[in-house]
Amino acid sequence: MLGLMQDWPLLISKIIDYGACQHGSREVVTRSLEGPVHRTDYAAIRARALRVAQRLQRDGIAPGDRVATLAWNTWRHLEAWYGITGAGAIYHTVNPRLFPEQIAWIINHAQDRMVLADASFVALLEALADKLGCVERYVVLTDGAHMPATRLRNAVSFEDWIGEVDGDFRWLDLDERSAAGLCYTSGTTGHPKGVLYSHRSNVLHSMAMAAPDALGLASRSAILPVVPMFHANSWSIAFSAPMTGAKLVLPGARLDGAAIFELIETEGVTCAAGVPTVWAMLLRYLDEARARPSSLQRLIVGGAAAPRSMIEQFERLGIEVFHAWGMTEMSPVGSIGSLKPALGALEGDARIDVKCKQGFAPFSVEMKITGEQGERLPWDGKSYGRLKVAGAAVARAYFRDATPILDDEGYFDTGDVATIDANGYVQITDRSKDMIKSGGEWISSIELENLAVGHPDVAEAAVIGIAHPKWGERPLLVVVPKPDCRPRPEAILAFMSGKIAHWWLPDAVSIVSELPHTATGKLNKVKLRELFREQRLPAA
Amino acid sequence: MLGLMQDWPLLISKIIDYGACQHGSREVVTRSLEGPVHRTDYAAIRARALRVAQRLQRDGIAPGDRVATLAWNTWRHLEAWYGITGAGAIYHTVNPRLFPEQIAWIINHAQDRMVLADASFVALLEALADKLGCVERYVVLTDGAHMPATRLRNAVSFEDWIGEVDGDFRWLDLDERSAAGLCYTSGTTGHPKGVLYSHRSNVLHSMAMAAPDALGLASRSAILPVVPMFHANSWSIAFSAPMTGAKLVLPGARLDGAAIFELIETEGVTCAAGVPTVWAMLLRYLDEARARPSSLQRLIVGGAAAPRSMIEQFERLGIEVFHAWGMTEMSPVGSIGSLKPALGALEGDARIDVKCKQGFAPFSVEMKITGEQGERLPWDGKSYGRLKVAGAAVARAYFRDATPILDDEGYFDTGDVATIDANGYVQITDRSKDMIKSGGEWISSIELENLAVGHPDVAEAAVIGIAHPKWGERPLLVVVPKPDCRPRPEAILAFMSGKIAHWWLPDAVSIVSELPHTATGKLNKVKLRELFREQRLPAA
Repeated sequence: MLGLMQDWPLLISKIIDYGACQHGSREVVTRSLEGPVHRTDYAAIRARALRVAQRLQRDGIAPGDRVATLAWNTWRHLEAWYGITGAGAIYHTVNPRLFPEQIAWIINHAQDRMVLADASFVALLEALADKLGCVERYVVLTDGAHMPATRLRNAVSFEDWIGEVDGDFRWLDLDERSAAGLCYTSGTTGHPKGVLYSHRSNVLHSMAMAAPDALGLASRSAILPVVPMFHANSWSIAFSAPMTGAKLVLPGARLDGAAIFELIETEGVTCAAGVPTVWAMLLRYLDEARARPSSLQRLIVGGAAAPRSMIEQFERLGIEVFHAWGMTEMSPVGSIGSLKPALGALEGDARIDVKCKQGFAPFSVEMKITGEQGERLPWDGKSYGRLKVAGAAVARAYFRDATPILDDEGYFDTGDVATIDANGYVQITDRSKDMIKSGGEWISSIELENLAVGHPDVAEAAVIGIAHPKWGERPLLVVVPKPDCRPRPEAILAFMSGKIAHWWLPDAVSIVSELPHTATGKLNKVKLRELFREQRLPAA
Repeated sequence: MLGLMQDWPLLISKIIDYGACQHGSREVVTRSLEGPVHRTDYAAIRARALRVAQRLQRDGIAPGDRVATLAWNTWRHLEAWYGITGAGAIYHTVNPRLFPEQIAWIINHAQDRMVLADASFVALLEALADKLGCVERYVVLTDGAHMPATRLRNAVSFEDWIGEVDGDFRWLDLDERSAAGLCYTSGTTGHPKGVLYSHRSNVLHSMAMAAPDALGLASRSAILPVVPMFHANSWSIAFSAPMTGAKLVLPGARLDGAAIFELIETEGVTCAAGVPTVWAMLLRYLDEARARPSSLQRLIVGGAAAPRSMIEQFERLGIEVFHAWGMTEMSPVGSIGSLKPALGALEGDARIDVKCKQGFAPFSVEMKITGEQGERLPWDGKSYGRLKVAGAAVARAYFRDATPILDDEGYFDTGDVATIDANGYVQITDRSKDMIKSGGEWISSIELENLAVGHPDVAEAAVIGIAHPKWGERPLLVVVPKPDCRPRPEAILAFMSGKIAHWWLPDAVSIVSELPHTATGKLNKVKLRELFREQRLPAA
């Protein structure tokens, strides 16, 4: 027997309708790419998104078509998302930091019919345009006055483009399971894979993220997503902000410490979200400028593990750090960490110990860790295994790819290795492929790296396994020193010694001037292993 | 094109699975009907709910069957809900305060196959048992030691009943739109009508309620639903607490000021929810005992309008009042009021003015107010019209009743008359049938009542329309004085004069010793109109 409640589909249009209706005058503030700070509100965002949808339809874009965006976090990018999804089409966020060949590959794989791009990416697109036969039109996210001269096909400025319609449009009635967004994962090997979000998954993920133990978004909040919209839905914020009436502060292209600090102060930001690299820049700026943020209460750190020292520094400033973990396939948040009451009384180092873990799963995310045979391992904080997830906003397949990716119980294998403690806190130990197997036992490269960067002279560290005749593999530590520092390998090993099991201590340390990174800023260990392919360990 | 995300149905079993997995040791504390305070946790609630489901299945209860509960808020009632829904059956909460004939009518209309009842309601059920042919078994929510001798069919104590199974059970895989709960509205006229909640509507309503601007539930919260589980899902709390890991404090049958205060203090309650009557009792107790709650931060007041003086008193104690409005047909919350940032700077009377309104719609609720022709009226805080709602947890029909209840746009007519201001705050002016039409203009009976109870000698007030040869109708004020007070009618009218439009002033005041109420404690104006049928107004 079915219930007798209304059929109210979980559509993205419901979010912006709600934001405009209940929080219509709540501000959306952008540091524009043209320079000045731009101010609008949810009512205006909706009104202009209706024009986008209407214009897309006039240009022949049909439900299910892909429309790429290649853009920083701005109000126009936001309008594009709501307009595209409101017309039943799919926003395909392309990461402009990818290598040009990857961008071309992705746009072709997605078969994007249109590309909406910031003016600063026009040159990049012009260089690729010959390879992008599927793209019928390029819309530059600017106005007529700032429109660059370009030979891109049917190029038009966003303002001129939507200026030709009146906004008299009704959002499409869609099945809530309809595809809404597409984002490719940037693996270090193989071709990128597309994750195809639905309206339903985005709405549910955003509802879960608004909860007090996650982003904690209220109408009185002001949230700054430094995390780009092209990183897996900006961790829900482009949706959860209008859903809750939180003020939205968008950084445009300037992510440096001074720019971020200024936005926080002038806009009264209460919550900010981004990767550790960004927060390291902010900390450096705060230190140099002898400044401290006055309104910031909650800092969400994700995308990579936050170093302990970073967590300590922000907490000393009175800003609570919420360490999060997730991936593109999870929409993306899989865990986020406020302190559960059993832990709430912890102070000092014990508190930071918990904050260094990646938090716990919010409602709608299910987790397990499994051993070599796929068996479930206990949540004891010690057993580590493959981290597998299920939930309302977890992928079940990749776009245009028939490969099955779920196990017998319907879980997706994240490729991460983790422990989960008795309180449910996840600690990512490593990517499974980066674990080092020494004498049949696992060594976590990430733990060694985190420890090494605690040395005062070390700026960045990477650990990879090197073949060893006796142990199979042994760890090699590769280190980039801080400017004007010349740490000795023995000093670094001495610093690490005693803080880990003795047999985890790297067999060698190599000092280099830089480490290879992927387009999204992650350590590229595949490349690193290539560079050190000939390396022999001293004792081997 | 559909998205490629997992099919993760919004089932009630997902809530208790999550609560047990992530917040398994979080307490559920009950003032038991047997006397002592009882403590359990979400892991144990789930384990015992699995036994309930298994036992129901062994007793032949099939998906879609209705199982009634006639019970106060206790851990066993909670286990019953999760067990019933986990077996695919439907919990039908019966309000024990209804008149016995209504209880029998409702159980028969629902065709309940089983009744789970507190021991204190056994006598009530025995008196009705002959009329309840559909009921195959009665389970008394107690243990063997407290089991009363009874001739109820197949009667068994809850503990003995679930003691016969081992809990080795898997929640049923269900369509998320499956019926999960049934609650009858207790109108003042006609037969009660059944609202049939789905798994999906309950999950979505609870997710919306957990948000910071509504209940604001985090794992560190401790919530006390004084509102009974038989009042429309206890305003979501039986679901939103395990969904967020909030500690759940259940008052059993003792709702008096001393008992509630004691629970708040001993259990560190941060949020409590109930009707104004309960909070009036608490205020009286606090006054007499010269006490003040130390942990309570947020008070949810709904079910009837909270008097201004009540809001003022709690806010003076540093407890933020969230005035809510809703109805059984809305699962039930339709609006709830934190202060939006545009209003956040308000202090003193201006702040209380906003708090006296019933808040704004959370995400997933849509509203409109309409005029005589069904046309939409502006949100200006002045225009009042029929309040109509749509949303993910709003009824589209009643159980076993073919009458259409939605308008052309899919909105449900609440029967309330309201204004909505430019900030989205709802103010319920009256039930549409209680408005008084004088000379073609509307007078709100509720506004007059709220004003009259502000008089120091007035305990309770009701206003009804009396036929008038010139004006059509004119208001009659009926007043119950406070103990040992003898207010004169002229003094009350003088008190009200100047605070409302002159023509709103009642034409007469009648002093009575008590007013008629419905079984749920609401003013019974139908009865009141009958009592004053022969009344003539002085000037008429």
